[in-house]
Amino acid sequence: MIPDKAHISFLHSALQYDGDLMPNQEFHAWMKKCRDSVKVEVTAVTFPELNKWLFEPNTGNLVHESGRFFSIEGIRIKTNWGRVANWTQPIINQPEIGFLGIITKKFNGVLYFLMQAKIEPGNINYVQLSPTLQATKSNYSKVHKGNTPNYLEYFNGDKPRKVLMDQLQSEQGARFLRKRNRNIIVEVDDDIEVKDDFCWLTLGQIKTLMRFDNLINMDTRTVISGINFGSYPSSSIDVFHHFAYQNGSKASNGQAMLLSALDELHSHQSMENIISWITGLKSTYELEVDKIPLNQVAKWIVNDREIFHEQHKYFSVIAANVHISNREVSSWFQPLVRSAQEGLIAFIVKDINGVMHFLVQAKIEAGNFDILELAPTVQCLTGNYRSGLNEYEVPFIKEVLETSPEKILFRSMQSEEGGRFFREQNLNMIVEAPDSFPEEVPENFCWMTLNQLSTFIRYNNYLNIQARSLLAAVIF
Amino acid sequence: MIPDKAHISFLHSALQYDGDLMPNQEFHAWMKKCRDSVKVEVTAVTFPELNKWLFEPNTGNLVHESGRFFSIEGIRIKTNWGRVANWTQPIINQPEIGFLGIITKKFNGVLYFLMQAKIEPGNINYVQLSPTLQATKSNYSKVHKGNTPNYLEYFNGDKPRKVLMDQLQSEQGARFLRKRNRNIIVEVDDDIEVKDDFCWLTLGQIKTLMRFDNLINMDTRTVISGINFGSYPSSSIDVFHHFAYQNGSKASNGQAMLLSALDELHSHQSMENIISWITGLKSTYELEVDKIPLNQVAKWIVNDREIFHEQHKYFSVIAANVHISNREVSSWFQPLVRSAQEGLIAFIVKDINGVMHFLVQAKIEAGNFDILELAPTVQCLTGNYRSGLNEYEVPFIKEVLETSPEKILFRSMQSEEGGRFFREQNLNMIVEAPDSFPEEVPENFCWMTLNQLSTFIRYNNYLNIQARSLLAAVIF
Repeated sequence: MIPDKAHISFLHSALQYDGDLMPNQEFHAWMKKCRDSVKVEVTAVTFPELNKWLFEPNTGNLVHESGRFFSIEGIRIKTNWGRVANWTQPIINQPEIGFLGIITKKFNGVLYFLMQAKIEPGNINYVQLSPTLQATKSNYSKVHKGNTPNYLEYFNGDKPRKVLMDQLQSEQGARFLRKRNRNIIVEVDDDIEVKDDFCWLTLGQIKTLMRFDNLINMDTRTVISGINFGSYPSSSIDVFHHFAYQNGSKASNGQAMLLSALDELHSHQSMENIISWITGLKSTYELEVDKIPLNQVAKWIVNDREIFHEQHKYFSVIAANVHISNREVSSWFQPLVRSAQEGLIAFIVKDINGVMHFLVQAKIEAGNFDILELAPTVQCLTGNYRSGLNEYEVPFIKEVLETSPEKILFRSMQSEEGGRFFREQNLNMIVEAPDSFPEEVPENFCWMTLNQLSTFIRYNNYLNIQARSLLAAVIF
Repeated sequence: MIPDKAHISFLHSALQYDGDLMPNQEFHAWMKKCRDSVKVEVTAVTFPELNKWLFEPNTGNLVHESGRFFSIEGIRIKTNWGRVANWTQPIINQPEIGFLGIITKKFNGVLYFLMQAKIEPGNINYVQLSPTLQATKSNYSKVHKGNTPNYLEYFNGDKPRKVLMDQLQSEQGARFLRKRNRNIIVEVDDDIEVKDDFCWLTLGQIKTLMRFDNLINMDTRTVISGINFGSYPSSSIDVFHHFAYQNGSKASNGQAMLLSALDELHSHQSMENIISWITGLKSTYELEVDKIPLNQVAKWIVNDREIFHEQHKYFSVIAANVHISNREVSSWFQPLVRSAQEGLIAFIVKDINGVMHFLVQAKIEAGNFDILELAPTVQCLTGNYRSGLNEYEVPFIKEVLETSPEKILFRSMQSEEGGRFFREQNLNMIVEAPDSFPEEVPENFCWMTLNQLSTFIRYNNYLNIQARSLLAAVIF
């Protein structure tokens, strides 16, 4: 794609690993101050104590009395993919599309992103760096009678702004029934008030901060993963590489990674071939998902404190009372989803003819919008990969876990969304394959460049949130 | 998109308005011979006579005894789009993804398409020009115990071929629940037997033949609509224009149409803006569709001969006995869907700065995969547009129907799929707007170039079949 002004501004900001407005050496002290200034208490309660939430008499679904926010319902799945052809499970139904939005503004020619140190009850450390705005339709239409979310007026069109990116993107297909959010980045020219707990960072700073555990929240990761930088001739990419090096990039393979992101000519597979591969898999594999009442879900138990699988596998739903000093509503009750274990999310990458390629997996999950989505090489979110006791085998897990340290390009713990999930974190890794790693891969895997992945993200329903979230961490 | 060899072969074939292998002056005689050589009889029967089909006792759904092919079921729709917020209706459920495939081969450097004069029971004239292969999964997995479809081996990978295009594309969202087919074009190098009722045509010939009523079937139209020609600099497009003119193109506005198809730089709206427009609409409008048993659909009556709306609106389902002399199975029973009226499908186009732009409508239909799809400017498939007695108003219908003759670029009757629909035809038109037609359009309309529309087709779930089918008729 021929780059426009927005692509070039994004690329320029991505190559700035430090920023004038919130220098790296001040950031952590500022974050600590934000964390110290709030008090959060999350207490497990029983479902009868879960104020404003109830189990619907006929269906057993766990719903809010307003009918809004989200509900816990059941689904029945039929598929010819994998080893299990039929099952039922609880799922989060949240049909509302919310905003995940970032305001950007140019200072001295560099695009800065307005980020918020935001509290979410499910976060391990409560406060993480979130987009400027994070609001469900129930939030911004004030169903819960709190204040209007900060900066909403720059996203709903009430104040002038230029839209740089605006995409619908899916969330966890194993947990949510076809949930999507509006991932949006706008640019403003006006002076804009920086409210408490907000700060301006470059894209390069945000990406670098992903190297810290549980600091950049999931919503930030999905929004910045949608950024497209455009496509350029190789000679320009050489210049960008020098520029990145001058600016202090520590990416050991910056040139191959930059080519992967910015060159649309040199890829292992053409886009037509990749689309044909996806078409073939979607034609072969079937996924039929029907909503059922929660009280018809087999093998799951509902007691006073928890909705859980009889073998305590996968995840459970708990009831929580949340007290927060620094939020639009300071105390409320809500269900939270707790994962049975930590998971692993990893991309294997390989330099093929000087261009970094990502090993992408086509993966079926029950809540997917369109049968399968493109996932990281390894994604075992709910399985116990350490013991290997699973319904399914996980290809390439050994290769990832046994990567020698100098081949690990990225490794940190990242949290899932703290508004729905209770202290859920996954090990995120990007590892470089050894030279001996074959280019031939199993039927449901494919090598792609960042440029190709970015194009698929743009047209939505292609990359799952785990893949997008991990791609957000790539620095050049 | 940078053109590859396939793009250039497609473009070259599209600019050949006559062919050496089946010259235009011989085609109609050949087609008549094919039509005369078969005998087709379609007789209305009662549902109890509909052999192998039954109404399921619990649900009232009309199903095949094998559980395959398709079924008539019910759906419940909730939406905040349009004037009617809730309704139930029958729908065709055909979850299987079939092949709509065309074999191509180069003769003297020109790409030819292997087309079939094919009988379909619902066609007005029984025989229309179809893709090389048209097969549901039930067909090619031989559920009905007929012969293996002709040329299947070039599509399932048993014989060597190059895949030029391979996309999943939706079908009528008002009639089918999320039905899609695999639209695929392959190229072979080998000599290949041309069986009875098959012939080789250039892409330019096929497009020109769309000017005749009910000749090019719906499956052909959807497949060729997916062809992308790549993007080129203006200087190359000038050369193509001269070439088209030399070859006898009768397109009055060939240059503006070629620029619309082949230039990715000059458009009224950027792709980012269009994606943002779609994202905004999908975030605003909700479409909740749940399957229900057919016997729970309100206002529809099932009697011995028909499933119909109490006011005889929309469509009905009838039972048919089909006798055909020249097909893999020569006699069978099946339900057919009969439309209450003919419809109108039309694009208004406008030359904006020398590039032809199409006025595209974002339209919600109950069976859509993803809330809304991009539709022609006017699409009133089931409404009676002549009397204006509708649940909804149809914008721009007056402008289309009152277009002065010299501004009509395309006008013919085209059939819907004759395997499911009984003699359903729609008036298809492409009309050029007068200079006074405003560039400002209502919220759910947008001006796009062919190049942009072609990009959206590639990533599927964007353009509905009516839009794709009509775009197939564009010649340069």
